[in-house]
Amino acid sequence: MNVVFAPDSYKGSLSSIEVSTIMSKAFQSVEPEVTPIIKPMADGGEGTLEALTQATAHEKVTLSCTGPLGERSESWYISLGDSRAVIEGANIAGLPLVPHEKQNPDATTTYGLGEAIRHALDRGERDLIIAIGGSSTNDGGLGMLQALGMKAYTADGKEAGMFGKDLLTVKKVDFSGLDARLNEATIRIACDVDNPLTGPRGASYVYGPQKGASKQQTADYDQALEAYGQLVEKELDKELAEVPGAGAAGGLGFAFLAMGAHLQSGARLVAEAVDLEEAIKQADLVLTGEGQSDEQTVYGKAPGYVAELARLHEKPVILLSGSLGEDLDELNELFTGCFSILQRPSTLEECIQQAEHNLYQTARQIARLIIK
Amino acid sequence: MNVVFAPDSYKGSLSSIEVSTIMSKAFQSVEPEVTPIIKPMADGGEGTLEALTQATAHEKVTLSCTGPLGERSESWYISLGDSRAVIEGANIAGLPLVPHEKQNPDATTTYGLGEAIRHALDRGERDLIIAIGGSSTNDGGLGMLQALGMKAYTADGKEAGMFGKDLLTVKKVDFSGLDARLNEATIRIACDVDNPLTGPRGASYVYGPQKGASKQQTADYDQALEAYGQLVEKELDKELAEVPGAGAAGGLGFAFLAMGAHLQSGARLVAEAVDLEEAIKQADLVLTGEGQSDEQTVYGKAPGYVAELARLHEKPVILLSGSLGEDLDELNELFTGCFSILQRPSTLEECIQQAEHNLYQTARQIARLIIK
Repeated sequence: MNVVFAPDSYKGSLSSIEVSTIMSKAFQSVEPEVTPIIKPMADGGEGTLEALTQATAHEKVTLSCTGPLGERSESWYISLGDSRAVIEGANIAGLPLVPHEKQNPDATTTYGLGEAIRHALDRGERDLIIAIGGSSTNDGGLGMLQALGMKAYTADGKEAGMFGKDLLTVKKVDFSGLDARLNEATIRIACDVDNPLTGPRGASYVYGPQKGASKQQTADYDQALEAYGQLVEKELDKELAEVPGAGAAGGLGFAFLAMGAHLQSGARLVAEAVDLEEAIKQADLVLTGEGQSDEQTVYGKAPGYVAELARLHEKPVILLSGSLGEDLDELNELFTGCFSILQRPSTLEECIQQAEHNLYQTARQIARLIIK
Repeated sequence: MNVVFAPDSYKGSLSSIEVSTIMSKAFQSVEPEVTPIIKPMADGGEGTLEALTQATAHEKVTLSCTGPLGERSESWYISLGDSRAVIEGANIAGLPLVPHEKQNPDATTTYGLGEAIRHALDRGERDLIIAIGGSSTNDGGLGMLQALGMKAYTADGKEAGMFGKDLLTVKKVDFSGLDARLNEATIRIACDVDNPLTGPRGASYVYGPQKGASKQQTADYDQALEAYGQLVEKELDKELAEVPGAGAAGGLGFAFLAMGAHLQSGARLVAEAVDLEEAIKQADLVLTGEGQSDEQTVYGKAPGYVAELARLHEKPVILLSGSLGEDLDELNELFTGCFSILQRPSTLEECIQQAEHNLYQTARQIARLIIK
């Protein structure tokens, strides 16, 4: 019996690799003949690269690049062969890399991500998947574009700096020096939000505060992104600021659109990178899950995408999550069965502490039901 | 597909009839072709009779008898035909019938239960099942035995009263006037505890406090039951006080032993009364459950007994409970799968409030897994 284990992480308690491993052990404890196919999922945010390392043949490429605060830092991405590489923005300029007291969009930059892309191009990678969620920045991708050869100038004709605060001073952009190799490359951006660049649903208002932006900064950055967006659109003669996802990762989505990249569902890109569909074709059963599932799960979240693939190939698919919303009817449109791992009345903290034990026990019960 | 629904109650939230009905509706919402066989269970305590009314062809017999505080009251039992009747002690002298501020073993009596037995004998019933759990009394069955013709005397040769406080004055008992029809009757007592009459594990110390006994009363009643027990044993020339279950229901277990009754597992007697084994033989699947399951569930609790019958006939049996203990290994010796109905972090109060909704949803998920 082939069982695909393709969960997202249980945020705050277990990584997707841990979740899939625990599920798999539980199934094998019931029936040693189960052949587990472990495909940890992610949605393009923090942990995407780690999940991919589990389910792909890859080379880990380390590099020295600029960190989120401009410091020198070490990072890594993976090469999948055939000129394919996957880079995770959160791994280079992610919010968890910035100490809480220093989280401030003025002081952070995506410059290192541009360096990583250049590094990959230098290695000959031409098919790039870039996971951009979980960023600490609100720089509209200014730093990244600069690292890739775009020039940005202030009112007095000087080159603008690379940090968020410098975005507020940019009056002119020049894409003529952009790395020409980008034209030969395919860049797909794993992105799981559909926000436009600016406005009430834009990058600054929706995601600024969680990156340390004050009310005043939030308004200032919204204005700055608007002005910067217009400069770029004019320079390239393209309309990009309203494209869904332009507002992802502090406007990094917009910068990638400017480079001709495609924004795609993170879950789908990860699924493609790990050949999930092929695995599901071989499967008798698919298990997925996440920390908290509700009606949103069916709209582009990783377990929802896993379930869509399972449906496509008419395989039963079970959702096993930390917690479930009130109404399971919408989930049941996609999932054969939906279960919470909870075993008794508990606080959220207790649930997080007991997640490993409860997940193992519940997965075992499901295995017993299905296999016995 | 025949599915037997044989849960106990979820104490504090849903009766066993409600639980089995909700489970059955959930299964039928998934697959209308499911044939539900509803066999609500009980363990001999409060709710036993109500559960039996659901799954048996019966006649409800009403009577006027003495209530737990000596008041005139209305009660009922059921006749199953073929001289078989089932009487529930909790329905006549149960703790929930006594207002909280009046709960005191001095003031309560089992007299009404003796009257109900006489009433049943008058009707020609000769095979009696009596559920004795949930009592408000600690009278050692004194009141019941008096109602059936036993005489008890105080030190000055007067007839003792029928309340708990009168037990402390009994110096002599005389069984010669006991209703002779009891000799022709089979009396089986549904009892799910194994306490002896007296001592640290006896009726008074273990159950007295929850019936309103003070520390002093607890000690006094333990002594009084000891003396009373010796009088009865001497009178009948039998050793009964140490028999497991003699301490059930404030010593009512002992009084029944004195009458030659058999103490049996409540779950088993209920199962026999509703022909559960026959239903399980016809079943493709068995569902059971209770409010809180743990290792104790496998030792004589209703879901444990249901599972034993299902094992015997090699049918899959699923436990669906409000809450589960830490370790499911022992439960898995009997149950194919064990699930909690919880869906998200919740307090006990929230769990109780949401029990109906959560039970329905979880039962649906299990049905989907098994049937789809």
